[in-house]
Amino acid sequence: MASKPPKGMQDACGDRYAARDELISRVVGVFRAHGAEGMDTPVAELKAVLTAKYGEEGESLIYDLQDQGGELLSLRYDLTVPLARFISTSGRKSLRRYQVGKVYRRDNPAMNSGRFREFYQADFDIVGDHPSMWADAEVIATAVAALHAAGVTGFRVAVNHCSNLEALLAGAGVAPGMLRTVCSSIDKLDKAPWPEVRGELVAKGVSPECADAVGDAVSVRGPLVATVAAASEACRAELTELGRLLGAFGVLELVDIDFSLARGLTYYTGMIFEVKLAAGGGSVAAGGRYDDLLGTVGRHALPAVGFSVGIDRLLGLVGGRAPSAPALRVFVATSAADSATQKLHLLALLWAAGIDARYQMKADPALPPQFRSALKQGCTHIAIVGDTGVGAGQVVVKDLSTHGRREAPVEGVVGLFSAPLHAS
Amino acid sequence: MASKPPKGMQDACGDRYAARDELISRVVGVFRAHGAEGMDTPVAELKAVLTAKYGEEGESLIYDLQDQGGELLSLRYDLTVPLARFISTSGRKSLRRYQVGKVYRRDNPAMNSGRFREFYQADFDIVGDHPSMWADAEVIATAVAALHAAGVTGFRVAVNHCSNLEALLAGAGVAPGMLRTVCSSIDKLDKAPWPEVRGELVAKGVSPECADAVGDAVSVRGPLVATVAAASEACRAELTELGRLLGAFGVLELVDIDFSLARGLTYYTGMIFEVKLAAGGGSVAAGGRYDDLLGTVGRHALPAVGFSVGIDRLLGLVGGRAPSAPALRVFVATSAADSATQKLHLLALLWAAGIDARYQMKADPALPPQFRSALKQGCTHIAIVGDTGVGAGQVVVKDLSTHGRREAPVEGVVGLFSAPLHAS
Repeated sequence: MASKPPKGMQDACGDRYAARDELISRVVGVFRAHGAEGMDTPVAELKAVLTAKYGEEGESLIYDLQDQGGELLSLRYDLTVPLARFISTSGRKSLRRYQVGKVYRRDNPAMNSGRFREFYQADFDIVGDHPSMWADAEVIATAVAALHAAGVTGFRVAVNHCSNLEALLAGAGVAPGMLRTVCSSIDKLDKAPWPEVRGELVAKGVSPECADAVGDAVSVRGPLVATVAAASEACRAELTELGRLLGAFGVLELVDIDFSLARGLTYYTGMIFEVKLAAGGGSVAAGGRYDDLLGTVGRHALPAVGFSVGIDRLLGLVGGRAPSAPALRVFVATSAADSATQKLHLLALLWAAGIDARYQMKADPALPPQFRSALKQGCTHIAIVGDTGVGAGQVVVKDLSTHGRREAPVEGVVGLFSAPLHAS
Repeated sequence: MASKPPKGMQDACGDRYAARDELISRVVGVFRAHGAEGMDTPVAELKAVLTAKYGEEGESLIYDLQDQGGELLSLRYDLTVPLARFISTSGRKSLRRYQVGKVYRRDNPAMNSGRFREFYQADFDIVGDHPSMWADAEVIATAVAALHAAGVTGFRVAVNHCSNLEALLAGAGVAPGMLRTVCSSIDKLDKAPWPEVRGELVAKGVSPECADAVGDAVSVRGPLVATVAAASEACRAELTELGRLLGAFGVLELVDIDFSLARGLTYYTGMIFEVKLAAGGGSVAAGGRYDDLLGTVGRHALPAVGFSVGIDRLLGLVGGRAPSAPALRVFVATSAADSATQKLHLLALLWAAGIDARYQMKADPALPPQFRSALKQGCTHIAIVGDTGVGAGQVVVKDLSTHGRREAPVEGVVGLFSAPLHAS
């Protein structure tokens, strides 16, 4: 019998699960501070909803469900199209939401470098009509705060604008019909050297002269304020305002303009950004403005801006550390043959108070293996019932680090943990 | 463009999402107190893994993924088979785990009564070799505690044993080859009256006399201790020990033996149980011992016992209440035209401290609409910068319920929330 998960998918259990859980709750804490509502949507969407947006390249990566009668479904490819569909379903005109969930890509998996076919994304989006660049600026500030909360440092935010891309490529002589495919080559510049990208452009039918002009045009990058004058007229005012707002939010010094940032022209319509690690460490979060998506997938157009952060990628970065040692974990032990019932009663009292309590599943275990088990499981305290030398119906609690001890009637065990145990 | 979620699947946003999140964290709190490790597995499994266990009835309800080259996959039907597969993949010999995740059934959905095609289950399982009935008892105690933590009351736990079922049906004259199909009819007795179930048995080829004998045999029910003597010899010792341990855990008075409980003989091998609401409210959690599953799906057999609780079902029961009002939610307002930058800076300070802070996305809003927006969004405080009458660079914070107010330099705003605001 095959005993493996599907190709490109993985299990998480124990420390790895706890580390991811902790990471997600930190990122979600930031999203909630920004007033976002939590959202959950089905893992599958109607196939027609998904294929409306991604274009050919995306479509080949989508998992379809088998036609078993009824609707044709596919697994979601990201959390943005489901948001657009939700806005349409619910009829809401504005929304600030976060969503953490699994997305699916029939990509070539590279498990060691964190590329999976099933992986967690955490998204934050602001939908609705707002004065120019306010939502854009808050989304970038939120991305920065989320990464800081996750313990990631040493990154910079690269910003560009779809209008800028279009203007500079047109200026370099790229034909309008070639814009998207040229952009998708340009977008590889953070992973591939220019000669390779240039070769791809030429292979796509771009003349060598035009390719060189494109190379010059997209080579502009630098701190936002110092670089904004080089941006096309069409977006200069927006990027200037963005800089002003990012300054007020206190994150401007992390933000560069990078003309080679060229992600998703099928998707984005205004400001686009990517959070990149120093020293070619790649991208950890990305987003931008997508004012047309809600009109394509749903019934009415609505402005929207947001970003996505890859949770599994983050987990790899921060080392998948387990959360710190538990504040309180109690091992309930017996020191007499007839105290099994008292042990279970004590456990029930601790569990009812929400206290993590462990024990050995045996009526009459010896004391030394119980101590060993307590230490092995990382217990902070051991609570002993039975022949404790302090009277029947009493429990003795020992702090395994300070060696302090206390005693109380069994019914009062929970109270022993509301104050520190003093060494005796 | 279709703008609906797939049939039988639903979105959750805002209050409903928050209510489910809260419910899950309460249930998970119980599981963690019992020392369980968190687990996550892929939403899809190899089709061969899933079909190894469910039998024909289950198989027809499984969502298959389309064959797009590569492995044949299906969406998981429950969280138990993925656990069995995980044990085999990881080679672990013992595990105490919880898992909260979505499962998929191509069933006839009945959204109003809470039957969906995609729904959340929360599972708790103990895998490994333990003395008789200790793990069984803890699993039942954990189910009771999880439901209490979720705010569900007025339920009883019905217990039966696979050996008991087999013995009493054999005693009634049911042929060995008919056991499973007779059980699946018997299992409907909590929803259908006896004459209907009897009719189904006869239609399946059971003689009327045998059907009547079955009806008599499964009519036994009552408190565990009072009823255990009626159970078959083969399981009487186990059920007696179960009662003793449940007594020590303090939940015995909630537990009945019910001979008509006949779930999943393809799955379970020992004690089975179901948590049922009073007055025909149906089942909210169910589980039992499945010592053969890990040998069927994986490489080696291991004893296991666990249960599943339907989160969406629970949410329906407790009314999908939103969590209580936020302890602290601040609206940042401006009272002067030139204070937009200060407003954003104040927001950044509050967010960095993890405080939920809202604002109006506008450079120069009037004060009254800002107050209205604060109240509409349930803010507890309003923080005003600009022309506040207390000097430049100062912020005034008002408590919207007590009408207390305080002021501080903008940089010290977070400190204003570490102590209650007194009325002035």
